[in-house]
Amino acid sequence: MIQKLIDNIVSKDAPIVVGLDPNPKFVPMDIMSECIEAYGANLKGIAEAVWLYNKAIVDAVYDLIPAVKPQIAMYEQFGVPGVEVFKRTVDYCKSKDLVVIGDIKRGDIGSTSQAYAEGHLGSIEICGQKFAPFDEDFATVNPYLGTDGVKPFVDVCKANDRGIFVLVKTSNPSSGEFQDRIIDGKPLYEHVADKVNEWGADCMDGEYSNVGAVVGATYPEQGKILREKMPKTFILVPGYGAQGGKGADLVHFFNKDGLGAIINSSRGIIAAYQSPNYPGYGEKNFADASRQAVIDMKEDIKSALGK
Amino acid sequence: MIQKLIDNIVSKDAPIVVGLDPNPKFVPMDIMSECIEAYGANLKGIAEAVWLYNKAIVDAVYDLIPAVKPQIAMYEQFGVPGVEVFKRTVDYCKSKDLVVIGDIKRGDIGSTSQAYAEGHLGSIEICGQKFAPFDEDFATVNPYLGTDGVKPFVDVCKANDRGIFVLVKTSNPSSGEFQDRIIDGKPLYEHVADKVNEWGADCMDGEYSNVGAVVGATYPEQGKILREKMPKTFILVPGYGAQGGKGADLVHFFNKDGLGAIINSSRGIIAAYQSPNYPGYGEKNFADASRQAVIDMKEDIKSALGK
Repeated sequence: MIQKLIDNIVSKDAPIVVGLDPNPKFVPMDIMSECIEAYGANLKGIAEAVWLYNKAIVDAVYDLIPAVKPQIAMYEQFGVPGVEVFKRTVDYCKSKDLVVIGDIKRGDIGSTSQAYAEGHLGSIEICGQKFAPFDEDFATVNPYLGTDGVKPFVDVCKANDRGIFVLVKTSNPSSGEFQDRIIDGKPLYEHVADKVNEWGADCMDGEYSNVGAVVGATYPEQGKILREKMPKTFILVPGYGAQGGKGADLVHFFNKDGLGAIINSSRGIIAAYQSPNYPGYGEKNFADASRQAVIDMKEDIKSALGK
Repeated sequence: MIQKLIDNIVSKDAPIVVGLDPNPKFVPMDIMSECIEAYGANLKGIAEAVWLYNKAIVDAVYDLIPAVKPQIAMYEQFGVPGVEVFKRTVDYCKSKDLVVIGDIKRGDIGSTSQAYAEGHLGSIEICGQKFAPFDEDFATVNPYLGTDGVKPFVDVCKANDRGIFVLVKTSNPSSGEFQDRIIDGKPLYEHVADKVNEWGADCMDGEYSNVGAVVGATYPEQGKILREKMPKTFILVPGYGAQGGKGADLVHFFNKDGLGAIINSSRGIIAAYQSPNYPGYGEKNFADASRQAVIDMKEDIKSALGK
């Protein structure tokens, strides 16, 4: 599956992913009102508003981008109707030939991780027929429980040509609290990176492994070290834009082949119309603002990479 | 909310929680067939079978136990219909006055953790009306992202009288891979325990904090140390029974007041009818086997605690 992501990145000439993290504060009022009228002032109404908002953004940007990253928390917060819209969003994006990275950050003990892995990346067999419950292409995975929490994901990836991105160094301010602590002369995140190499070694798909890593754009120095440490690992880089990461910070996340990293922006794209950088679009043209923000992000990264 | 859990533990005289982790292999064939006939050989059919199985077990044991711990992975693996049954299970258990610990192991950066916290423990306001999307009483939380991943859960707990259990030392064989690594002279899990004390300090509810910890029964020595280190923290102890933890291992997870720990058993209770320890029940009487397994588990723990 990493090869499919690479093919998409190359054909769109864009190592970027749009984070579909639909905070209801981003959803234009007229969409919200329409859905509340149609479905009620309830979780279903708000979830359907999120769906229309997502769909409009995907329609406006899909030809420019290789992948999307829906953040499941932003759907789960609306209960069952929200989870249903998450699934609908995954399916719609796949119908547009986008690679879908489910930002689910799951991780548990063996048999439980297996259930998450089958549910998100694999399939369930019922009376001889296979059903793919969520059917993402990639999922993000939390490594705190160690190998037997991650291995079931790797096995499901191998069986189904899917991939994972393991949290190594996250983009948030307090990520260092545990991740940066020094163990045997190097920070915890480097120990996790060693394991990512190990887990990914027999899960190769072309030049890169289907086991990737998450390293925040907000930590460019660590990104440089981790890039060198994990040469066959694709790095998913959150934290660009709204969280403070800039194009110039990103250079060292890439390998010399120009590949090896994919940069996520969520709010900066999907809520562009609310930003002072995109005046004049307004609520009516929110999806056009998102399209312009994608074009600008591509330019920023290209120029940072000296292309 | 921890006080409500304690009240339930005292009134049922049972520091135990039943893990509702419905692996489809546990579900009796006649329930499965009935649901597949009624709903189809699909995710909905299997999810409805899980529901009937759960309900029968809850009906058979609710008068004996203070709490249940549904493991959301086991529902999420069946996609949207599975998540709907998770929610139905939460609601049903609450209607039986059981405390519900959602074993969700979520954890993300600030705003995303907030979405998880509101979705599972809090509420969403829509047009002035509040909706509690999943409405568990407690949730389990992964600490790898540090304070700003956990704090939103703590804030939601404070606002809604709910609680969390933070993963400190998990029950699985490879939990030591990262959690046991030595940082400044003590293992990572002790550093996490220090943070649990800090996060829980202004979230007290009687003698204990609404911020609890997860420590596996399979690591009794570490349990002893962590018990002393976190005197005001309730410990959720998985790993009893099928994972290898025994009653005698559990003594040191408790405080001198006889409180401070709640022991989980999942498979050992809900799939008791499949165990050689409970011959003669068979598929037809699976719920009765679960009831007997609860009675036996209570006895085992009581005698280990010298009661």
